Amino acid sequence: MGRVRAARPLVHHITNYVTVNDCANVCICAGGSPVMTDGEDVADMVAISSATVVNIGTLNARTVASMEVAFGTASGKGIPMLLDPVGAGATTYRTEVAERLMGMHPTVIKGNAGEIGVLSGLGGDVKGVDSHGSSDVASAVETLARATGSIVVATGETDYVSDGSVTYRLENGTDMLGNVSGTGCMVSSVVGCYIGACGRSIEAVASAVTAFNIAAEVAVTRCGGPGTFRPALLDAMFNLDGETLDDRARCERA
Amino acid sequence: MGRVRAARPLVHHITNYVTVNDCANVCICAGGSPVMTDGEDVADMVAISSATVVNIGTLNARTVASMEVAFGTASGKGIPMLLDPVGAGATTYRTEVAERLMGMHPTVIKGNAGEIGVLSGLGGDVKGVDSHGSSDVASAVETLARATGSIVVATGETDYVSDGSVTYRLENGTDMLGNVSGTGCMVSSVVGCYIGACGRSIEAVASAVTAFNIAAEVAVTRCGGPGTFRPALLDAMFNLDGETLDDRARCERA
Amino acid sequence: MGRVRAARPLVHHITNYVTVNDCANVCICAGGSPVMTDGEDVADMVAISSATVVNIGTLNARTVASMEVAFGTASGKGIPMLLDPVGAGATTYRTEVAERLMGMHPTVIKGNAGEIGVLSGLGGDVKGVDSHGSSDVASAVETLARATGSIVVATGETDYVSDGSVTYRLENGTDMLGNVSGTGCMVSSVVGCYIGACGRSIEAVASAVTAFNIAAEVAVTRCGGPGTFRPALLDAMFNLDGETLDDRARCERA
Repeated sequence: MGRVRAARPLVHHITNYVTVNDCANVCICAGGSPVMTDGEDVADMVAISSATVVNIGTLNARTVASMEVAFGTASGKGIPMLLDPVGAGATTYRTEVAERLMGMHPTVIKGNAGEIGVLSGLGGDVKGVDSHGSSDVASAVETLARATGSIVVATGETDYVSDGSVTYRLENGTDMLGNVSGTGCMVSSVVGCYIGACGRSIEAVASAVTAFNIAAEVAVTRCGGPGTFRPALLDAMFNLDGETLDDRARCERA
Repeated sequence: MGRVRAARPLVHHITNYVTVNDCANVCICAGGSPVMTDGEDVADMVAISSATVVNIGTLNARTVASMEVAFGTASGKGIPMLLDPVGAGATTYRTEVAERLMGMHPTVIKGNAGEIGVLSGLGGDVKGVDSHGSSDVASAVETLARATGSIVVATGETDYVSDGSVTYRLENGTDMLGNVSGTGCMVSSVVGCYIGACGRSIEAVASAVTAFNIAAEVAVTRCGGPGTFRPALLDAMFNLDGETLDDRARCERA
Repeated sequence: MGRVRAARPLVHHITNYVTVNDCANVCICAGGSPVMTDGEDVADMVAISSATVVNIGTLNARTVASMEVAFGTASGKGIPMLLDPVGAGATTYRTEVAERLMGMHPTVIKGNAGEIGVLSGLGGDVKGVDSHGSSDVASAVETLARATGSIVVATGETDYVSDGSVTYRLENGTDMLGNVSGTGCMVSSVVGCYIGACGRSIEAVASAVTAFNIAAEVAVTRCGGPGTFRPALLDAMFNLDGETLDDRARCERA
């Protein structure tokens, strides 16, 4: 966390227009500097960024083309890139776009358990942009990580992260995260900050997810429902210190 | 309300990029599962949804085409559909698009008093996306409901709902709703949840509007202005119980 | 401020999809009525507005064309117009678009110190959409105001406003503004309200920036971090009174 704040990585995003503001703000609270562009200057902006985060939540033909430019540029320059395949499995178009972007070798693929289940080939149930994963999410992340060479994260009640050889089970978080739109997108932005500062590293990815989840644990004690949870979550992410992280982190080999 | 929460309807939206996040979050707090897409997979997503909500707040040629696909798909499959004709009457383009979509037989048309006044032919004053309706809003909703066959809602200090034969006057709410952008759009999302769970029903529509307005009455006692009102409103919607609803509801035949 | 609230100016925006909701809400809290459209009815909507605010934060070819229509319409009708050249200097495309729009004679150009430094020709460092200006921001605003005929605002720890002959240094504000995405965009919306109500006037522009900054000073005492700062900022803007403004304002000739 200190390393991210010291580096203040510029994190480029092409994300959905539903939760983009929360992504920008959580990125700042995690120590990064967000920039969103999906227009004619995508390649130029990615080229000066420390990481790029692509989220297909509200994709269309124009933005999908921009996503490919973003990943192409990042790939060519060795800039860490994250794919959040929102809704893969819900429609054929989303699954196909997710698979095409997955083929461009993102550093990290982060989805919910259902999306990762579908993309891993082990199966999952995706309804709109919500989902339920297979009973064996640990296998899904490991399988997809091996197949793609990416670090794979599946979020849910328990989160799993795998690079194909090591898999972690992350037990932090709160059910309240499921009552706010875009908390999964926010995780992606935080991971973007961490890989922007630290490069490809399963420990960095696991740390990012755990930091976000611990901020959520703090926030849920200071809110009256989903509405006040969200500002409390940003406050908690901003105010998070190393001691709280060390005390609360529940991360172990799966 | 219990019926919506039990059903957890998937509610597809094509809405404006100004207030879309509030729509997603109020949909969750009302018991639904929101999904927003206006791209190549609109038809596939609508086909698996329980309702579709179309809001023309920031329309353009591409999204208007998607709106027509959404309504066409919903119509073909008997999926409830809601039209929020934001700014109809302010520009010719908006009025024309609203009329075209209105011609596709939405289950519900929900606007503010000015927009409904314009669309009913009885007249109204629309300035940007704010408006003042004619003095006789009850006539406007009834007239438009008869002309279209839709259930028509006009929001304002007092809200009116009509199916052409029965008209209700809904007296809940607070002036603070007028100080926050997108509270009208949020009402549409809540109505989307209710018709998604209950199908075409004037009682479901009236219940949705009343539930939202009662949540607003609760929230206004827990805020310091429009900024803190909004998270309080989401909390209140999420925490609303049947007893509070029954105690506070002020709904009668007009 | 009273004049803005009495006039309730309709303020048209073409702004970015990241912070557009905050722009709409701060516009209401400052006394204006926001309307966002970038589609086929831009010219018709601008024609009935009191001001137009153009922000290039998430520009693309389609929206840039709409921005030119907005400025062309406003220019032809003598409607005040503001340009917020977000990220000018970060990519060639943004710089070029900013210069093209700057050539359409906006009433106000409002950027951060880096963007104004770049556009003035005196230089600045723009990283993504954050920046650091030259050491002499006062010279940059004055130079750019003389070159363009626009009133120029550069925001930063200290804000500067110039019409080319008079330059003000504005000392209100709080560092917390730098921890929230879009506070610069929000300033532009507030300035849009003031020039919409008062027309071209360096005093109106300075008053708008100062009012926003004083609201921020109030809000920072009522928050626990960037998340709760934002709703507190809207509350403070909404509740701001003339006495607080007079007591706190720190505005002097540079």
